[in-house]
Amino acid sequence: MANFKGHALPGSFFLLFGFWWSVKHPLQQSWKRRQHGGRKDFPQLSKRIDFIEGIIKIFFAFVGIMAEQFVPDGPHAHLYNGEWVKPMNWQHSTMYLFYGISGIADVLSVSSLPVPAGLDRFALSLALFMEGFLFYFHVHNRPALDQHIHSLLLVPVFGGSASTMLEAFMRGNSLLELIRSSLAILQGTWFYQIGFVLFPLNGEDWDQESHGNIMFITMCFCWHVAVALLIVALNYSVVWWVTKRCGGGHNMDTEISLRKTTHTDSSSQKALLEESDEDI
Amino acid sequence: MANFKGHALPGSFFLLFGFWWSVKHPLQQSWKRRQHGGRKDFPQLSKRIDFIEGIIKIFFAFVGIMAEQFVPDGPHAHLYNGEWVKPMNWQHSTMYLFYGISGIADVLSVSSLPVPAGLDRFALSLALFMEGFLFYFHVHNRPALDQHIHSLLLVPVFGGSASTMLEAFMRGNSLLELIRSSLAILQGTWFYQIGFVLFPLNGEDWDQESHGNIMFITMCFCWHVAVALLIVALNYSVVWWVTKRCGGGHNMDTEISLRKTTHTDSSSQKALLEESDEDI
Amino acid sequence: MANFKGHALPGSFFLLFGFWWSVKHPLQQSWKRRQHGGRKDFPQLSKRIDFIEGIIKIFFAFVGIMAEQFVPDGPHAHLYNGEWVKPMNWQHSTMYLFYGISGIADVLSVSSLPVPAGLDRFALSLALFMEGFLFYFHVHNRPALDQHIHSLLLVPVFGGSASTMLEAFMRGNSLLELIRSSLAILQGTWFYQIGFVLFPLNGEDWDQESHGNIMFITMCFCWHVAVALLIVALNYSVVWWVTKRCGGGHNMDTEISLRKTTHTDSSSQKALLEESDEDI
Amino acid sequence: MANFKGHALPGSFFLLFGFWWSVKHPLQQSWKRRQHGGRKDFPQLSKRIDFIEGIIKIFFAFVGIMAEQFVPDGPHAHLYNGEWVKPMNWQHSTMYLFYGISGIADVLSVSSLPVPAGLDRFALSLALFMEGFLFYFHVHNRPALDQHIHSLLLVPVFGGSASTMLEAFMRGNSLLELIRSSLAILQGTWFYQIGFVLFPLNGEDWDQESHGNIMFITMCFCWHVAVALLIVALNYSVVWWVTKRCGGGHNMDTEISLRKTTHTDSSSQKALLEESDEDI
Repeated sequence: MANFKGHALPGSFFLLFGFWWSVKHPLQQSWKRRQHGGRKDFPQLSKRIDFIEGIIKIFFAFVGIMAEQFVPDGPHAHLYNGEWVKPMNWQHSTMYLFYGISGIADVLSVSSLPVPAGLDRFALSLALFMEGFLFYFHVHNRPALDQHIHSLLLVPVFGGSASTMLEAFMRGNSLLELIRSSLAILQGTWFYQIGFVLFPLNGEDWDQESHGNIMFITMCFCWHVAVALLIVALNYSVVWWVTKRCGGGHNMDTEISLRKTTHTDSSSQKALLEESDEDI
Repeated sequence: MANFKGHALPGSFFLLFGFWWSVKHPLQQSWKRRQHGGRKDFPQLSKRIDFIEGIIKIFFAFVGIMAEQFVPDGPHAHLYNGEWVKPMNWQHSTMYLFYGISGIADVLSVSSLPVPAGLDRFALSLALFMEGFLFYFHVHNRPALDQHIHSLLLVPVFGGSASTMLEAFMRGNSLLELIRSSLAILQGTWFYQIGFVLFPLNGEDWDQESHGNIMFITMCFCWHVAVALLIVALNYSVVWWVTKRCGGGHNMDTEISLRKTTHTDSSSQKALLEESDEDI
Repeated sequence: MANFKGHALPGSFFLLFGFWWSVKHPLQQSWKRRQHGGRKDFPQLSKRIDFIEGIIKIFFAFVGIMAEQFVPDGPHAHLYNGEWVKPMNWQHSTMYLFYGISGIADVLSVSSLPVPAGLDRFALSLALFMEGFLFYFHVHNRPALDQHIHSLLLVPVFGGSASTMLEAFMRGNSLLELIRSSLAILQGTWFYQIGFVLFPLNGEDWDQESHGNIMFITMCFCWHVAVALLIVALNYSVVWWVTKRCGGGHNMDTEISLRKTTHTDSSSQKALLEESDEDI
Repeated sequence: MANFKGHALPGSFFLLFGFWWSVKHPLQQSWKRRQHGGRKDFPQLSKRIDFIEGIIKIFFAFVGIMAEQFVPDGPHAHLYNGEWVKPMNWQHSTMYLFYGISGIADVLSVSSLPVPAGLDRFALSLALFMEGFLFYFHVHNRPALDQHIHSLLLVPVFGGSASTMLEAFMRGNSLLELIRSSLAILQGTWFYQIGFVLFPLNGEDWDQESHGNIMFITMCFCWHVAVALLIVALNYSVVWWVTKRCGGGHNMDTEISLRKTTHTDSSSQKALLEESDEDI
């Protein structure tokens, strides 16, 4: 997939998931806060959403593997015929496989089976790690700019893997959810950036060895980080504004003041639990 | 032990322990859940199992050290006679030594002595670290493929060391137990893979410098990860199905629903403890 | 800004913030302790101070970006005209941008909006990470001493990023606040040191390739660490002495003895909370 | 101090402290357990011991700095006279300085001043980090064996720094205390090993470039780890045996059984606290 479309496609997927997470998580947080005032239908709905998300991941992963294998110039499930057949397609299939496993873990986690707590986050963290692992050995022996721009992709990939692994142990931490959403969006926009630089739409190739280009790309990466934060901030604001509008804010204010005076996250959770006891 | 058998033997040990852990831990979790409904004989049995596991580790380590020293072409406990005698055999003996220490720590931890909590996990983590430490300085000055395939072994070794070290502080976390089991199985299957690649059974040697071979081996490692996860998932499912069948599930359902609504692992443990108080 | 002033300016900012934090945090801790004895006006005041700090950061960042862009030899917001225009100025603008974002996060965190707990610390950690990230790719292709002295700057930058990230999850931990203050002061004094070495005021250039100079600079860095600790220790002492003088110490002594007998930080916080309940 | 004595001296200090810690900490743990049965004089005694330890550290550090500066061939507090005067002595003085700061932090932590919890552990961690930091830039441009044997010293140095830093946040964790004791002993014995290898007492120099020697030294390091663990285990056993003999064990047994059935360290601490309430 060494063309613009081959970078735009995974980029779109990561953008889509990052965008969706940056809507889902503030919505969940807002529901959770509201729930203490009486409405108890939240966990069921939240589970159903996670179930659908898992199914979509499995579907995308399956389609991805099939596409990589059975496109006209693909390996058609042949691995070796004297030499290795289409190693790139096989590598991409392997990456999709782990996102598929992550989808399966999502589905298992919302089922009634006694799976270990945090399995879904661990599986997502593993999928990101595997993507980074394969990319790491993927970028050797290339021109300087190509290698640099691909290496920078490892920042959101391994960063996302680390923060998602932390989530396996600190589930429901809104900061980690925000970081995961931002890094997914960052990975998405950076895939597009790689596409624009290596396969420029206007046909003017970038100088692959220019130190100035490498310096600019490094700085450009920082701007992508800022843009990813901006998108997540906008989504959080919109969700906050909509839920405030639609949901009425009858016991919202007390909770916000609660959150502001408590200091650590864990203590705030305890405080909220106690508050909800008093409400009932 | 530079032959196929020399890689199959340690591979079998790790496979055996990984397989055993992936049966033992879901069994313990299931017993722990059941125990709150009345049966109190679990801790005693669990201790006895850990004791036997420790003894087996000590025995294997002792046999391993003796074998490395007193095989016909071994050093027979001679270290230096003008030059270092059989450094490989001495290195393998040293690795076994630390697994033996880990076995001793297992036995001490289930004894009535006031050993620090988490000593057994720390000793296992140290044994893995020492194995990785010796391997790291072991693989220099070899052909590219040989070096790469041995380096990949360091992923489950150091990964296992890190996750087991975490267990010393977060004991009984089922996700970490699952990770440890998977990484042990991964190490086992990868030892076999090294054996198959470096000493092919059909006699056709792999090209040690081919970039295509290195790319394939990297991807193949990812498939081993997937297979290790699959084996662990199967064992967990079988244990779950068997314990559900045999044990009756009288207060199982309430507990599962409990686990699903609580958010962090620690809070779920607290909830379970409180539940058990109510049961009694 | 490759001159002495260009290093003294950012150095002064970091010195200023480090100095301010090493006064603010012991003051907050002392207020918090006092507050349990009755006075409840602390959280409001503390919020207002954090708000002003955020506004000042935004202002400094805005001025910094404008200055870098519109100084006579700046890029005047031009990015590309056949080649990249003034990449250094653009890089510095990018660094300022993230400190501006950190200021915005500070302001949001004290507002009444339901932002994730720890967002302000995360944004500061990110700003430091971005500074280190740009510096890391900034120092290639320079003389040995220049490269070494800039690399040492990465110790307080990445160290500060890590400790501030920890604060996002362990808010109000006084040790982490002390570490952050010290590392900010260290970064400040080290910027001055870089200025003195690379642009000596007396005009005698340092030998850029001398091994002795590199050894001395390494040791000198350690002395800066000691000086930063000394400054923070002095500020803590002065604040402690002043609050003891001015505030009267009516229930101070009991609290100190409390702090000394409890073992972990978290348990001490619980103890303090219970103490405050008894007081009321 | 490039001779045998120059390595034996610091080695003896680390051995001494490691040995002392491996006696002090099990004693403290045993006192803490006993204390719940009634005797309340423990915290006062424990504080006094920590105070004396701090004073001894400050004294040793002061003597060390003076000795490095004013030995006949030392720099006599001269830093620069055209070239850097005796950089090695200055570096060693700097290392001692941070151990002196660690001693001051120990004294402050047992005083009645409101210093941040964990300051003493942080200062010790910093002293170890600084030692490792200076060593890291110290070993360049040397023969292979010299460089390798010095690099291995960084394992206990940075390992000790990391584990002590963890102790700043998980104070009183007996596993971390055991690790710190072991790593101090390891550092001590390894200093002796460096002395024996680089300045052999029998006058037969080691071949500095032999790969066999490097392999042996790597393995020898593992044996030092095993010996350090053995020494710590012996000290723990002796302390346990002596306290059991002398102290009578009236409520010892119940506590041990308590420790064995509880799972995480923190929950066990809570359980002990509740137990002690019932005792009273």
